Amino acid sequence: MAHDEFSLIRQWTRRSDGQEGDGLTVGIGDDAAVFTPTPAMEVVACCDAMVETVHFLKETMNPSDIGYKSVISNISDIAAMGGVPRYALVSIAVSPSWSAEMTSQIYDGIHEACKAYGVRLIGGDTVSAPDALQLSVTVLGEVEKGRAIRRSQAKAGQVVFVTGYVGCSAAGLHLLLQLKGTGETIPARYRQLVREHQRPSAQVNAGRILQAVRGNGALNDISDGLASELWEIAEASQAVLSIDASLIPIREDLRFYAERAGRDPLDWVFYGGEDYQLVGTADAEHVGALQEQFAAAGIPFAVIGRVDAREGQSAVACTRGGRQMPLPKAGFNHFGRPE
Amino acid sequence: MAHDEFSLIRQWTRRSDGQEGDGLTVGIGDDAAVFTPTPAMEVVACCDAMVETVHFLKETMNPSDIGYKSVISNISDIAAMGGVPRYALVSIAVSPSWSAEMTSQIYDGIHEACKAYGVRLIGGDTVSAPDALQLSVTVLGEVEKGRAIRRSQAKAGQVVFVTGYVGCSAAGLHLLLQLKGTGETIPARYRQLVREHQRPSAQVNAGRILQAVRGNGALNDISDGLASELWEIAEASQAVLSIDASLIPIREDLRFYAERAGRDPLDWVFYGGEDYQLVGTADAEHVGALQEQFAAAGIPFAVIGRVDAREGQSAVACTRGGRQMPLPKAGFNHFGRPE
Repeated sequence: MAHDEFSLIRQWTRRSDGQEGDGLTVGIGDDAAVFTPTPAMEVVACCDAMVETVHFLKETMNPSDIGYKSVISNISDIAAMGGVPRYALVSIAVSPSWSAEMTSQIYDGIHEACKAYGVRLIGGDTVSAPDALQLSVTVLGEVEKGRAIRRSQAKAGQVVFVTGYVGCSAAGLHLLLQLKGTGETIPARYRQLVREHQRPSAQVNAGRILQAVRGNGALNDISDGLASELWEIAEASQAVLSIDASLIPIREDLRFYAERAGRDPLDWVFYGGEDYQLVGTADAEHVGALQEQFAAAGIPFAVIGRVDAREGQSAVACTRGGRQMPLPKAGFNHFGRPE
Repeated sequence: MAHDEFSLIRQWTRRSDGQEGDGLTVGIGDDAAVFTPTPAMEVVACCDAMVETVHFLKETMNPSDIGYKSVISNISDIAAMGGVPRYALVSIAVSPSWSAEMTSQIYDGIHEACKAYGVRLIGGDTVSAPDALQLSVTVLGEVEKGRAIRRSQAKAGQVVFVTGYVGCSAAGLHLLLQLKGTGETIPARYRQLVREHQRPSAQVNAGRILQAVRGNGALNDISDGLASELWEIAEASQAVLSIDASLIPIREDLRFYAERAGRDPLDWVFYGGEDYQLVGTADAEHVGALQEQFAAAGIPFAVIGRVDAREGQSAVACTRGGRQMPLPKAGFNHFGRPE
């Protein structure tokens, strides 16, 4: 892009949510941002990249969705630590096929996601790229000292749970790819599936409930499909997770769409991705309290298995209707390319 | 890259400098990193991206240089706030033309830079890209509460100073582009110029000296050429900076190379970039103390002008040998492409 367009973009980044005050000493526009951490809290930091043609296509995501989702995927990582997201830094590399107008819409989405989750955009970089547009987002959050929930904390005897509904984002993407180039609109009954793909939610409230329960176990956000996330917990915790697939809640629209598409909804549940729900483990004695608190917060919470200890083993075992179901750990593969 | 190569890369990122302890509660390998901020310090955060063909070419930077420089450019932003760099998050998008071996070397450079500046790599993301390799680095640092040095703090009566030698990186790049494809090696007398381009230093110690002096003024790091940085200070501070170009120290090898190349070294000083020196303003009464402390630290420090106040004006005025020299604010343009 031309230099004046870059100046425009720099202006877009300096909207009201980056204003100073409330702990932010220096906002966007200097060499770096400066903020005062909240006393007795630790800082939680994560960073995720999204690349055109690898993580999204212009045909499956509009610019504001791309911006929105790039922030959500990072807020989700903060949620998976039990933290509260506070600040975001966004680096964007824009290629010539993206107009200033489209780039402005990406920032619209970034600002929308920030606003929805109480996050302030405090910095970043805007550069040009020769080909694919890329977004790299860092989100900084806070968590009570010593209370971050790690994926290595699964212990034998705990239950395995999942929040919300999984698999919907991948089904939404499947539908978008089916419709790509046909000019057809999205049937009303599937709009929510598509929305889960384009405008996902991060489970900050769920993470905060889990963080507040003493003695809780492991936690991961589901960015790469449930199988991959379960394996990560199993390996980090050196534990065996035994899952009963029939306990995983399947949303009605997902079930319906899968049937029409001739697919098993569990394929998308286990090997889809970008659901940004949480999967974790909890002490059995806390499950009642957790169920109550999740119900009060309006967040689905389902026990889907248990943690077993087998000497020196890290694995995920899965049954379905009483039969063993192999569950390799392969993750999400957006558009059929080798990762 | 294939999945097993990605696993390799994930291993490279988990080297010893990311280990937990000394304030780091959760290092690389979970959804997010967690650290305890130092009491009475604020957190300083910045983010910079580097894109193949826009910021570097395979022919001008070897992989470890690319990794090294991507970290330095961010540490430099922390230095320009007067802060101490502490943690880094690196997101890298690797295209098929980069082998696992080359990508590993990028991480070598990242780790070298982190080690040289006491920074720990605490997170990031490794994804694939269709075409150009991209690196986006976030560095988090700390600065004494209320003591961050802003670029908006230039005040009439202050002097303008610059640390070190400017223009060398751009001259080094000029030479590299001249030699590209010729098979010729770099003449020994220019090796330091090339090194300034490929393995620049960040002026953390200079920033710390300036931060410790009460009543100091504005500060910027020189990433886009001295003219652009001076203009940023002038505009952020609503001040007029009057520069005497003959006071800017020119290193002997730069002067020599410029003469051979038929160029004015000031072109590279003002419109080169990536020197990562600091330019700023300071109260005249502090200059003596600053000169002593910089001399003791072995860092060149030169007064190159003063800050004037003219009602409602933001500008950079420059003279050279008593004559006015126009100094537009255009910045660095790596390979002749429009930014």
